[in-house]
Amino acid sequence: MRAQAPAAELICVGTELLDGKPDAHLPAIALSLRAAGLRLSRATFLPDGLPALTDGLRGALGRCDVLIVAGGLGPTFDDLTREALAAAVGRDLVFQPRLHAGIRRKFARLGFKPARENRRQAYLVRGAEALANSTGSAPGQLLTLRGEKRPWPRSVALLPGPPGELGPMLRDEVLPRLRRTYCRGVRTRSLTLHICGLPESVADERLKPVTDQAGPELDFTILAGSGQVDFHAFARCASAARARRLIEGVRRQAGRLLGGHVFAEGPVTLEAAVGALLRRRRLTLAVAESCTGGLLAARLTSVPGSSGYFRGGALAYHDDVKRGLLGVPAAVLARHGAVSSACARLMAEAARRTAGADLGVSITGIAGPSGGTPRKPVGLVFIALAGPGPKVEVRRLRFSGDRQAVRQRAAAAALRLLWDQLSR
Amino acid sequence: MRAQAPAAELICVGTELLDGKPDAHLPAIALSLRAAGLRLSRATFLPDGLPALTDGLRGALGRCDVLIVAGGLGPTFDDLTREALAAAVGRDLVFQPRLHAGIRRKFARLGFKPARENRRQAYLVRGAEALANSTGSAPGQLLTLRGEKRPWPRSVALLPGPPGELGPMLRDEVLPRLRRTYCRGVRTRSLTLHICGLPESVADERLKPVTDQAGPELDFTILAGSGQVDFHAFARCASAARARRLIEGVRRQAGRLLGGHVFAEGPVTLEAAVGALLRRRRLTLAVAESCTGGLLAARLTSVPGSSGYFRGGALAYHDDVKRGLLGVPAAVLARHGAVSSACARLMAEAARRTAGADLGVSITGIAGPSGGTPRKPVGLVFIALAGPGPKVEVRRLRFSGDRQAVRQRAAAAALRLLWDQLSR
Repeated sequence: MRAQAPAAELICVGTELLDGKPDAHLPAIALSLRAAGLRLSRATFLPDGLPALTDGLRGALGRCDVLIVAGGLGPTFDDLTREALAAAVGRDLVFQPRLHAGIRRKFARLGFKPARENRRQAYLVRGAEALANSTGSAPGQLLTLRGEKRPWPRSVALLPGPPGELGPMLRDEVLPRLRRTYCRGVRTRSLTLHICGLPESVADERLKPVTDQAGPELDFTILAGSGQVDFHAFARCASAARARRLIEGVRRQAGRLLGGHVFAEGPVTLEAAVGALLRRRRLTLAVAESCTGGLLAARLTSVPGSSGYFRGGALAYHDDVKRGLLGVPAAVLARHGAVSSACARLMAEAARRTAGADLGVSITGIAGPSGGTPRKPVGLVFIALAGPGPKVEVRRLRFSGDRQAVRQRAAAAALRLLWDQLSR
Repeated sequence: MRAQAPAAELICVGTELLDGKPDAHLPAIALSLRAAGLRLSRATFLPDGLPALTDGLRGALGRCDVLIVAGGLGPTFDDLTREALAAAVGRDLVFQPRLHAGIRRKFARLGFKPARENRRQAYLVRGAEALANSTGSAPGQLLTLRGEKRPWPRSVALLPGPPGELGPMLRDEVLPRLRRTYCRGVRTRSLTLHICGLPESVADERLKPVTDQAGPELDFTILAGSGQVDFHAFARCASAARARRLIEGVRRQAGRLLGGHVFAEGPVTLEAAVGALLRRRRLTLAVAESCTGGLLAARLTSVPGSSGYFRGGALAYHDDVKRGLLGVPAAVLARHGAVSSACARLMAEAARRTAGADLGVSITGIAGPSGGTPRKPVGLVFIALAGPGPKVEVRRLRFSGDRQAVRQRAAAAALRLLWDQLSR
């Protein structure tokens, strides 16, 4: 079925994207389209400017069935996506009084008078349908070009550039329409497994019996992030039952091959998964961080509602702080050093005690670039978890990579240790 | 001079880039090219696969003078950039025994035998020059197409995908050659100013008298990041003296317009700038973080060598920790609340005292999404700095945006307060 799948392309508009501003769209749009049964075959970044935009749109329309265009729908003179599409397909722009009234109402609700320039946002390419913008002023548009000798009509969706406006419009307005046009009779289902504690290459190798099944009905993507690997599976079938059955099979087989390394499904982070376990088990947590210097706590507290289970802790970067704030005895530091199993254990216990928490987790290690010795090289990290109850678990780990990589992997490993302990 | 500037394009190769993997090249390459006097007019992401790659390369070669291609130079069957370029320009691939010997020597030094597939990396498009790879196995290649009726020859640089290999090869091998070909008689100079404490739109407005000077010899880009704004200026002139003079003028004028908001020049982060000031003044620092939960410390300790001045501190997320670890009196918390000037002041003083540091900085606020009240809304943050000496400075700030935005802006504001204090 993949051979006949419609070809989709993305165009991102904005001179700033070619001048150093990081893209905010491509990965998220790629994954949304695939879950809807479409797959990107090209993405193009174009500068503002009518000739370049028109040329880029024309080229893409010659290759693909579905074209998503992000950006250039604002009210100012350099927002030219509407004009460029009109030129590329040889149609004119038509002023829509009802759209204009809607834009004026939106501004009125916010207590502003719309600028004269906002009138420009009320023009549609002739024949295009307006797409509602639930969070901003610029309406999107969807132009469907029918009556050609192709298996499908061609569709062009113009979406506003701000991710907070584009995301909802793509999900609520564009994808349902595209599914009706291009995926008629096709039932889709997708699955995301989050994996921790395995490097990408190992996850890749282990999942080979699954990914070898890629074909017209099933395909896969493995993406590595900060301390975790995400495995995506997509089914496109003639019946919903078959799509469900295939994805169920993938879930079971992947789960078996990955052992206990799958920590969650769906759009969730490791820190949110740990938070959910803490909440369910009504446990509170404190931390003591040395080499990660706050990275672990920053991830834990990035989760809304983390104040329900996270108490705080100590940034025991210097040995004086390990002694003073956490009460690690000077004798332990002198005999075993700060990067040791003994110190990690005492730090975890002290974090728990001083913060009045049920669990205490600690990290102490050598992030580099300097500070390593033959016996304690850069990348050596000890992680300890005290509790629940009297037990303390200590892990000795060795990470490769530069300072940032060691720190991020150490924070991820501590989250993994928490997840292992809490999900037992 | 810009009208005659050569057109440059970038092609990034890899199916994974169209399947959700974030790009690692475009912003860095865009800025490197501009500093060398070139500017990207388009960037294209293409999947592995000969027809798509060949078509994409051919299209780009029809439009631009300089084409940078990232990725697809590995040894495996889906690394097809070499083959696609050969097809796009109608040349064959030539095996280079010397390149092959070099690859074998590299593997031997690492104690490996190269796989049979690595032979593929020793082929050059006929007429191309090999580019040394200082950190990996895949050589790059630079093909120069001369003898056409154009103001310049066309150049295509094939670079390996891993950023750690691409970066040095672009800087050391490609850009010097491109400058000789395309920027003969053109002298370039660039300037980056890092701005903190101003939103992007305000920085933009203030810098208007500078950016209005954009023209053939000067152009500008303003990019907003996490809690800071970067202002880039690029000069392309016929003489080095004039380029220097123009950039000096921009530096002076921008510095005046931005007041004390410029914290550094060149490639440096706010945390590194603060670290350099601490080191120069031989001062140590401790932190007490509530709503940012470690973000500030994580940024401070991301700087190599930060153990020379950063002592640690407290993650005082829960009020019990503010009381227990930091000794903030229960009466202060009851009377003023944890999000108050009084609490911020006591936290900063306690961080300094308990960690034995010269300076203590604290953050307490409401990151949301819940927890706000009419008197203390989401986004309200107090930041305090104790020291040097007995003085304590407290700032009351109000940030907009979601939980992550409030947290990041609060951490950046604390760095800003440190920078203000230390650079006086």
